[in-house]
Amino acid sequence: MAELKHSLAEMFKSLLNDKKYTSIRDVLVTMEPQDVAAVLEEMEESKLPLLFRLLPKEEAAETFVEMDPELQELLIKGFSDSELKEVLDELYVDDAVDIVEEMPANVVKRILKNADPTMRREINEILQYPENSAGSIMTTEYVSLRPEMTVEEAILRIRRTGVDKETIYTCYVTKDRLLQGLVTVKDLLLSPDDEMKIKDIMNTNVITVNTYTDQEEVAHMLSKYNLLALPVVDKGGRMVGIVTFDDAMDVLEDEATEDIEIMGGMTPSEKTYLRSTPLDLFKHRIPWLLLLMVSATFTGLIITHFENALAAQVVLTAFIPMLMDTGGNSGSQSSVTIIRALSLGELDFGDIVKVIGKEVSTAALCGSILAVACFGKIMLVDRMLMNNPDVTPAVAFVVCLALLITVVLAKLVGCTLPMLAKKLGFDPAVMASPFITTTVDALSLLIYFFFATRILSL
Amino acid sequence: MAELKHSLAEMFKSLLNDKKYTSIRDVLVTMEPQDVAAVLEEMEESKLPLLFRLLPKEEAAETFVEMDPELQELLIKGFSDSELKEVLDELYVDDAVDIVEEMPANVVKRILKNADPTMRREINEILQYPENSAGSIMTTEYVSLRPEMTVEEAILRIRRTGVDKETIYTCYVTKDRLLQGLVTVKDLLLSPDDEMKIKDIMNTNVITVNTYTDQEEVAHMLSKYNLLALPVVDKGGRMVGIVTFDDAMDVLEDEATEDIEIMGGMTPSEKTYLRSTPLDLFKHRIPWLLLLMVSATFTGLIITHFENALAAQVVLTAFIPMLMDTGGNSGSQSSVTIIRALSLGELDFGDIVKVIGKEVSTAALCGSILAVACFGKIMLVDRMLMNNPDVTPAVAFVVCLALLITVVLAKLVGCTLPMLAKKLGFDPAVMASPFITTTVDALSLLIYFFFATRILSL
Repeated sequence: MAELKHSLAEMFKSLLNDKKYTSIRDVLVTMEPQDVAAVLEEMEESKLPLLFRLLPKEEAAETFVEMDPELQELLIKGFSDSELKEVLDELYVDDAVDIVEEMPANVVKRILKNADPTMRREINEILQYPENSAGSIMTTEYVSLRPEMTVEEAILRIRRTGVDKETIYTCYVTKDRLLQGLVTVKDLLLSPDDEMKIKDIMNTNVITVNTYTDQEEVAHMLSKYNLLALPVVDKGGRMVGIVTFDDAMDVLEDEATEDIEIMGGMTPSEKTYLRSTPLDLFKHRIPWLLLLMVSATFTGLIITHFENALAAQVVLTAFIPMLMDTGGNSGSQSSVTIIRALSLGELDFGDIVKVIGKEVSTAALCGSILAVACFGKIMLVDRMLMNNPDVTPAVAFVVCLALLITVVLAKLVGCTLPMLAKKLGFDPAVMASPFITTTVDALSLLIYFFFATRILSL
Repeated sequence: MAELKHSLAEMFKSLLNDKKYTSIRDVLVTMEPQDVAAVLEEMEESKLPLLFRLLPKEEAAETFVEMDPELQELLIKGFSDSELKEVLDELYVDDAVDIVEEMPANVVKRILKNADPTMRREINEILQYPENSAGSIMTTEYVSLRPEMTVEEAILRIRRTGVDKETIYTCYVTKDRLLQGLVTVKDLLLSPDDEMKIKDIMNTNVITVNTYTDQEEVAHMLSKYNLLALPVVDKGGRMVGIVTFDDAMDVLEDEATEDIEIMGGMTPSEKTYLRSTPLDLFKHRIPWLLLLMVSATFTGLIITHFENALAAQVVLTAFIPMLMDTGGNSGSQSSVTIIRALSLGELDFGDIVKVIGKEVSTAALCGSILAVACFGKIMLVDRMLMNNPDVTPAVAFVVCLALLITVVLAKLVGCTLPMLAKKLGFDPAVMASPFITTTVDALSLLIYFFFATRILSL
């Protein structure tokens, strides 16, 4: 993919040098807007406006939507007012909002000045909804029908008004702006009788979301119910917009990426990797690294506290990394599983007892097998193979007992912290691997030294 | 959600006890099939067939598709041949294939015997494609048009054949089974002239996938190009099916879950969390825990090797967990970022030089800040606040130098391993956090002891 993009960009550069504008245009119209945008991003910035002007009007707008905000800003600054107007007229409201959200104030002002009055009003409305809410990602361009229309009248209305709608395939039946039901174009086309009334064929069990429903929930609902679009209603039950499946797919990908980034101990980034500078990456990564480094002071203090025990039996030190890693891995297995299930809506706080039961049983199984395997490994490898007489059966027993209990506690911490976080209104992913690892590290050391000092009488 | 499901199940139980079948039916028809399936899963198994028979034919089939394989099997075993036939007749081929794939051989035989001949042939065809390929998730039920048809004829054809198609909104224009172009219902409805030929209004720049294209790539393409459906062609360019957006959304969710599970050190599971028994969870988790425990033998051996150095300066032990954790966290930040970018198709192996450059620069920034912060912290907290004279500036210097180099190496390992894995045809996610942590643990200890023995002359 990356290679192809690069060689296309090279091709355009040489065509531009030779001023073969007709050929460029001929190639551009065969390409998808997403691919044109990707290639434009590879070009010199000074060539952008020229290439962009070679695109037919509609494709130009679609390509514009797919470009990076920096390049959009660059292009807008180069546009005359009438060029800007032309692009804006081709945009759907939700795409226009996405662009406005990324632009500096002076560019926003110019956009709003050049948008037609309806679009301007709608952009301003959508901008008022909280970030990541259904209201903020919806579009106001849907087909609405009246209950008394006939099938034939409905089809006529779609033919007349459909060209500017984001989807025509699901039509919403409203009366005084209140949502009464929905009808699909499939229903209309397959209806045996053109004279039937919409109210007699519409589906009245409509799934809706509120303007303030979280976008992730909206996306999961579209996916679960296999819907093309989901209507958004305000507090009074009045229909205000729709969220379409393509936006839902973007939300699913973005939210999964965000969860993965947070679980990996980073603050989420909106930029793609290749467009992030090392400084961007640094800013997203350093806070967690610093926090976790400082919190490791606890583990350091615990070790210092048991310095004498360690000095008496230096061999104990050799098992600290294994114990901490196994604890960390066990904990993150549980937390990652629970966080994903929470995000997919498979679990909620009410399931906490069931979850703890499952995790503790699983931990007991995993811990027992690990303890037995570890005992065997220590006696065989560390004692016999490495010929280390300090590794006594008593030492092995301490390590394995600590391991068993660490695994159980790690899984307990790993499953409860994310559920508590969710209950308290925090993002469960923030509680994931690195944070839990630190907690579990401290616990595992305390358990280890507890048994070591007791059993080995240090 | 979980609570609601539970109380709905309770309601159905009491209605069943009172034999209020009409009321049950009235409630069921207002519900979405996905929700009916979720409630049925909460019911006693003996009541299932009765409840299922109360559903209207079409909703029964849609509900059936949404149920767990175990319950599907249970229901099929209770069905008479004619009941089974009725459900099968309402299914789309791709859903039928999904069910067949989960059933034991004798049930599959009964399904194929009762499916109508066309469906039987199509099921057998789809079953031959490799798992996770476009061929295995496609459906063969799409609308095909001929280039010479007029718009009016095309609409008539959709009206006549559309009822059994998974989507009617994107129609494919074929000639001798070769794909010529596509036309949407929107194009047809908005066409100014009913007598225009399909070949004159069709879009001939059609994005296609092959039967063997990976399902994740198919899903990303649907999402990237905002498509309702993507046509699947065989090696000869003949059209064999379509993949629709709803299946793509499921693939996106499943693949993200799979990546998250693998990154969390588990083998991926197809069951939802609440339906997994502790034994299921155990089986998916223990292999990695065992592997990582055994591989921690290396870290143990490294520590044992430097036992004398540690005995001479026990304080060095206190910083081992911090060093290993910071290394592990730095490495997994990089690996997680790279793995996600690889999965989203933002990166490929050709970008490896760029990636290494970015990661090493980022690591140098992160490492320097961490080293400085760590030096300050050690001198302030460990030396002054905890009043520990063993923590000399030289010790602090060794720790911080090791920290800086560990962070750089960890990020280098974290970014290169997943890219190499991808290049070699393995799943990059397998290279994630736990595996990289183990490698980085060993490296960080070696670096630490290298500087400790040299600088502190131990």
